Amino acid sequence: MKATFRAVSEHGYTDLRVRDIGAEMELSRQVIHYHFDGKYDLLSSFLEYVIEQYEGSVAIDPGSDPRAELNARIDQCLLGPEFAEFIHWERMKVYCELFAYAQHDEEHREIFNDHYEYIRESIVAIIEAGVEDGVFRDVDAILMGQLITDVIHAARERRLALGHESAPEEAPRAIDEYVLDSLLA
Amino acid sequence: MKATFRAVSEHGYTDLRVRDIGAEMELSRQVIHYHFDGKYDLLSSFLEYVIEQYEGSVAIDPGSDPRAELNARIDQCLLGPEFAEFIHWERMKVYCELFAYAQHDEEHREIFNDHYEYIRESIVAIIEAGVEDGVFRDVDAILMGQLITDVIHAARERRLALGHESAPEEAPRAIDEYVLDSLLA
Repeated sequence: MKATFRAVSEHGYTDLRVRDIGAEMELSRQVIHYHFDGKYDLLSSFLEYVIEQYEGSVAIDPGSDPRAELNARIDQCLLGPEFAEFIHWERMKVYCELFAYAQHDEEHREIFNDHYEYIRESIVAIIEAGVEDGVFRDVDAILMGQLITDVIHAARERRLALGHESAPEEAPRAIDEYVLDSLLA
Repeated sequence: MKATFRAVSEHGYTDLRVRDIGAEMELSRQVIHYHFDGKYDLLSSFLEYVIEQYEGSVAIDPGSDPRAELNARIDQCLLGPEFAEFIHWERMKVYCELFAYAQHDEEHREIFNDHYEYIRESIVAIIEAGVEDGVFRDVDAILMGQLITDVIHAARERRLALGHESAPEEAPRAIDEYVLDSLLA
């Protein structure tokens, strides 16, 4: 998986060949083909591997104030979990490239849909808990969770595709000032 | 340009060959190469052509209420201008595919940055006018314009990459309920 990551980072998704992955770990194309049914199968496994690392790294204090918890969750999505910043954006580069390509790919679309739902639900759950505790007013938690998840996704893409280096810092500030404020009861 | 559009829609950006474009208008590869410096040059012209059609189609009543104007502008971005719905999403498919690929492409990145700024500025201008007229409270218009532009972009991508058919209708509703509300003085 690490060799695949290095190879995709270097060559990009569309230009990647199985031999490039082999070259990153000094294994032959044949050995890789023994374990995976070609480039596509290997990349699907890789995508699941990347997503799992993100999902496994969520750690938010359950006793904290729901607004602080929302902000921490959003920051973590945008600025990356425990990895070094460079690694986070190199991973996101591959993630976003495969995401755009998922319109042609039912299997990847399903993986991305699962991950999208996972992120949205983790935000919706915090909003719902806040509403239940009376800290937040009664909002459509799913609609707001979608809105926040959309901003996270777009800020990542802007950073990568358009080179807006400050997008991952500005987006959480905009969400806090202009979206989360509307949660106050 | 129409032949290019049909060819990209059908074959996708990465698999497109100049001969596919020629086939759409019964011209030879050679004739196209006489006018364009290869596939890449042709696609850059195509991207500018698509964007120009969107930019040219903005028509908002300058005398209207600024919140209604913002909503109309957002709807127009998400649901498309005067074209039929099918055409709008076929165009957006090509737009989003080239957008994700712009991380590898300085020239396209510049075109997308110009278009991003155009959309953001058209939203910022309405917010600023509303603040000046005292209808809106004093907000950081650029930060909020960015937030709204991000949601527009992400809702398009979700519709296309993840197949969320209702995203283009839900996103404007979420913006209106949870972002524009915070503009009230």
